[in-house]
Amino acid sequence: MPGKRIRVKAPATVSNLSCGFDVIGLALDEPFDIVDLELTDSPTVVIDDIRGCSTLSRDPEENVVGAVLKAAIVMAGRHAGFRVSIEKGIRPGSGIGSSGASAAAAAFGANLLLGEIFTPVEMVMLAMEGERLASGSAHADNVAPALLGGITLVRSYDPLDIVRLHVPSELCCVVIHPETEIKTSVARGLLDRHVPLATAVKQWGNLAGLVAGLYREDYDLIGRSLTDFVAEPKRSVLIKGFDQLKQSALEYGALGAGISGSGPSVFALCRGGDTAAAVMKGMSEAMKLPGIGFDAYMSPVSRRGAQVC
Amino acid sequence: MPGKRIRVKAPATVSNLSCGFDVIGLALDEPFDIVDLELTDSPTVVIDDIRGCSTLSRDPEENVVGAVLKAAIVMAGRHAGFRVSIEKGIRPGSGIGSSGASAAAAAFGANLLLGEIFTPVEMVMLAMEGERLASGSAHADNVAPALLGGITLVRSYDPLDIVRLHVPSELCCVVIHPETEIKTSVARGLLDRHVPLATAVKQWGNLAGLVAGLYREDYDLIGRSLTDFVAEPKRSVLIKGFDQLKQSALEYGALGAGISGSGPSVFALCRGGDTAAAVMKGMSEAMKLPGIGFDAYMSPVSRRGAQVC
Repeated sequence: MPGKRIRVKAPATVSNLSCGFDVIGLALDEPFDIVDLELTDSPTVVIDDIRGCSTLSRDPEENVVGAVLKAAIVMAGRHAGFRVSIEKGIRPGSGIGSSGASAAAAAFGANLLLGEIFTPVEMVMLAMEGERLASGSAHADNVAPALLGGITLVRSYDPLDIVRLHVPSELCCVVIHPETEIKTSVARGLLDRHVPLATAVKQWGNLAGLVAGLYREDYDLIGRSLTDFVAEPKRSVLIKGFDQLKQSALEYGALGAGISGSGPSVFALCRGGDTAAAVMKGMSEAMKLPGIGFDAYMSPVSRRGAQVC
Repeated sequence: MPGKRIRVKAPATVSNLSCGFDVIGLALDEPFDIVDLELTDSPTVVIDDIRGCSTLSRDPEENVVGAVLKAAIVMAGRHAGFRVSIEKGIRPGSGIGSSGASAAAAAFGANLLLGEIFTPVEMVMLAMEGERLASGSAHADNVAPALLGGITLVRSYDPLDIVRLHVPSELCCVVIHPETEIKTSVARGLLDRHVPLATAVKQWGNLAGLVAGLYREDYDLIGRSLTDFVAEPKRSVLIKGFDQLKQSALEYGALGAGISGSGPSVFALCRGGDTAAAVMKGMSEAMKLPGIGFDAYMSPVSRRGAQVC
């Protein structure tokens, strides 16, 4: 029905969670992006407005939301289009799934306006087209939790298989976003293309421990498992003051801490809101040392992901 | 109390379970090894008898049980020793934890005779000394399930951290043991020392899926996750007829199948005893083609591991 409108929000996400490189992602309650969508009868995408960010293009060929909506039109096989306006609550290049949130909101909104014709996996596939545009790689570890909420596992890409993992009731997340930008491509370039088998075994031992810890609601096990032998040793050099930030998180009671996505944001998982508040305070104090501006967030794990607002 | 005797059994185990290379192990109910132990007041280990296998040495310096018991004496710091006799129900070199079962029985029995002085993790560490002797590597992926039962994860070796995973109630295991021997060292030599990062990511995506599947009792997810991108592609060439065996297991309804440990045994996980019986029949028929003698086992997952018998 052309003219039908909807307002959708999708949250920031923390991917990797130390040991789950490229496969695990966690949805926050905030910050989030908002996308207003209107269904049109012309098979085009028009981006009327982008608020909260001056650097993103309104050309749908160069915009994450545009890429997702164009893919949705093709997948739907319908003579339909969209007019949208975007409100960015998540800064691009923050490492907490800025492009993923916009992409997830677009896929979620398109599905509703088109009459709920896509399965959850199809929505993830659509949102991945946004990631393909943003980073050159159609990865799902941010868009899956941004769409579905909770903590997600990308078990496989071929075929795409997303598993929603159990979320322990007291799990909270703190995110410190230093005002520096790290390009995903630069962060990815730091990684070795091969890892020693012994290192890979240690990494997947921890990931298996993390998943078991989530299901058992065993916070100690979660904490012990939050170790990254693959990406953090290479990438943490890009984040000024990373070691102090992490140390501070642990001193104030975090279960574990690490790089969110490819950075520069640093996350800490905590048991309970009180501990999370103390950890956020401690990490914020630690940020005074390098003297870089930063944003700080504290949030339970979002159960819902993308939603109408 | 010198003169005190005990009879202990510990079961065969399937390590790796396709995606859990070097970290996952599963205990069967049978076959098993039995170790009779007597506490003595001389700080030595005497192996009186080994039944069921003519190739194992009775010299405690060259025997898995001897290595474990000597380590137990040292760890206990007591002036005590052991006389033992061993009944091998599991053939060495089978890939279903023959040395691990003997080592687990020895550690479990020593602990009981010495007055239950060791923690479960300490018993695993003792049993690992048996593996060190048998294969040159003090690995825990067989001895942990042989001791503790169920399905275990070796999350970390430093410090040793063993996690007992949830066992779905209907999970059954079929094992076909072809009458060929594969040295662990040969099987290990086939593996690349480095794996492409993309391959490692696929492997740990599946392992995380397997662990989630176990906790959710989601048999389909378990089945989808039983894929090995690391060891099976290299090692399966050592097992004549492997592809047909695996194909047959899947045709008869197995959730998945792969190499048990470093082979030559091939395991299949199944939902329920009826399916397991059909899978065992199907795999046994498939073994007629290469014309190699074999043993076939079918067992639920052992909940107990090592125990007095």
